[in-house]
Amino acid sequence: MQAFADRIDDAVRRKESAIVVGMDPNPALFPPDAAAGGAEPEALAEAFERFSAGILEAVAEAVIAVKFQSAFYERLGAAGAAALARSLRHAQRLGLVTILDAKRADIGSTAEAYAEAQLGDLPGTPGPATDAVTVNPYLGEDGILPFVRQAAPRGKGLFVLVKTSNPSGPQLQDLLSGGRPLYLYAAALVRKLGAELPGACGLTGVGAVAGATYPGVLRELRDAMPETLFLLPGVGAQGGKVEDLAPAFLPGRRGALITASRSIIYAHRDRPGMSWKDAARSEAQALRDLFRQRLDA
Amino acid sequence: MQAFADRIDDAVRRKESAIVVGMDPNPALFPPDAAAGGAEPEALAEAFERFSAGILEAVAEAVIAVKFQSAFYERLGAAGAAALARSLRHAQRLGLVTILDAKRADIGSTAEAYAEAQLGDLPGTPGPATDAVTVNPYLGEDGILPFVRQAAPRGKGLFVLVKTSNPSGPQLQDLLSGGRPLYLYAAALVRKLGAELPGACGLTGVGAVAGATYPGVLRELRDAMPETLFLLPGVGAQGGKVEDLAPAFLPGRRGALITASRSIIYAHRDRPGMSWKDAARSEAQALRDLFRQRLDA
Repeated sequence: MQAFADRIDDAVRRKESAIVVGMDPNPALFPPDAAAGGAEPEALAEAFERFSAGILEAVAEAVIAVKFQSAFYERLGAAGAAALARSLRHAQRLGLVTILDAKRADIGSTAEAYAEAQLGDLPGTPGPATDAVTVNPYLGEDGILPFVRQAAPRGKGLFVLVKTSNPSGPQLQDLLSGGRPLYLYAAALVRKLGAELPGACGLTGVGAVAGATYPGVLRELRDAMPETLFLLPGVGAQGGKVEDLAPAFLPGRRGALITASRSIIYAHRDRPGMSWKDAARSEAQALRDLFRQRLDA
Repeated sequence: MQAFADRIDDAVRRKESAIVVGMDPNPALFPPDAAAGGAEPEALAEAFERFSAGILEAVAEAVIAVKFQSAFYERLGAAGAAALARSLRHAQRLGLVTILDAKRADIGSTAEAYAEAQLGDLPGTPGPATDAVTVNPYLGEDGILPFVRQAAPRGKGLFVLVKTSNPSGPQLQDLLSGGRPLYLYAAALVRKLGAELPGACGLTGVGAVAGATYPGVLRELRDAMPETLFLLPGVGAQGGKVEDLAPAFLPGRRGALITASRSIIYAHRDRPGMSWKDAARSEAQALRDLFRQRLDA
């Protein structure tokens, strides 16, 4: 069983890409020919599945992974849960690594239930077709370890929120304790837990989420977590830029993944006359090319 | 539209109870006559619904609210999502306040999607039959405000994690910044946002989760959040005791709710010869009576 960190490291080398497409399906932004046939959850879920399939088939060559945003599927209740499970399987069939962005964390048996649902083998859940999940660190190790334990025997991984990309992220995350910001304590937790998911490549499968909108702290985060895989959301619609992300990478442009969601999947909105699939492919390729050009190999 | 804080305050007075039953359905702990007719998600979901109905009908007189633990339903995928929505509706028909323990938090449009799914009017989601949700504060105000905005026009509320009941909660939550622990900064955020959901009774609808397993800090939390509704999990299976919770309450034993999950719903395991419904009723009544006796009126 190949470790998660090694699967990622191999994919980045093979595709010469560290781009992750974020799947945030919002029917209000769908192109007309991908619109749902009705407003009922079942019709919307079917549209989500067709939209996801169309986008992923278009971008699969340029990206290494897809990050599905659980919230948008939860808006559709049971129909959304079924569509999410099917779209995760479809993404895996396209050779993509699948990340479920659910940002859960809880305690004891509850955290175990989330970890089983999201990384385990339970029928009907996202678990069987999910390679990695995002996790919130506010509850400490108890809230994270159950995910590590589900991930380890399956070659799967997780990404713990360390420094989020939103404007109010600093309210708690930047508080100084002993002269160091809180996010460095979260980073220390990530590094420690990483020892449970080692890869042969030197990276670990307990990754860190670090917002591309705060490039100034990426060097500090990399120093604090030298073996950690970074997931960098916030490029595109949120204003983060690929060229500012170099400090997050290890030599050989390894060790970090760049996520762009709305700027790829809704690229048709800025490209009149281009089909939505071609627009998404073009934007994903452009990001991949920026990654190749602006980050030292 | 009655404010959430006022609905809770009225229910506590009327029932002379501040007990919340936690619904953590785990098929391995079900009594034989509530067992599922198979291992498929659909059979388990049906068993969850019957178990929830049996427990809630038995305890409805002694408790004011039920807290459904989302994780256990998510283990069943789409079938679990449908069962959760139905059990929430059934709980409301029994006159109980419904709390969805989902501990979500995200940014921007994603946080809005969670808030809509959990407190809004979307068909097929938990939203229409959920009165309050739990929220994680790690992302700051951005991660919480969308829930406040969905709650306000509907007389609903939320409970933000401040000091969790688990052993590793202190790893981040107790870090000192400027001489004050992190959880007091979360408390300040809760108090500030509370101004958006004022009740006529003087309490607000932005509540705080404070673990009953750390009774030593309840006085400090109450001083920091004088108008906040507290949700106190950790009584029973986790070791918290009703008699230690007095500092969390306001005069007239107002302003705080005591949650017990496994100790109520699986009470039959410690009461051989008693039916599971009678055992749950008996345990809920015992906790309610402890609340009446040990906390000053």
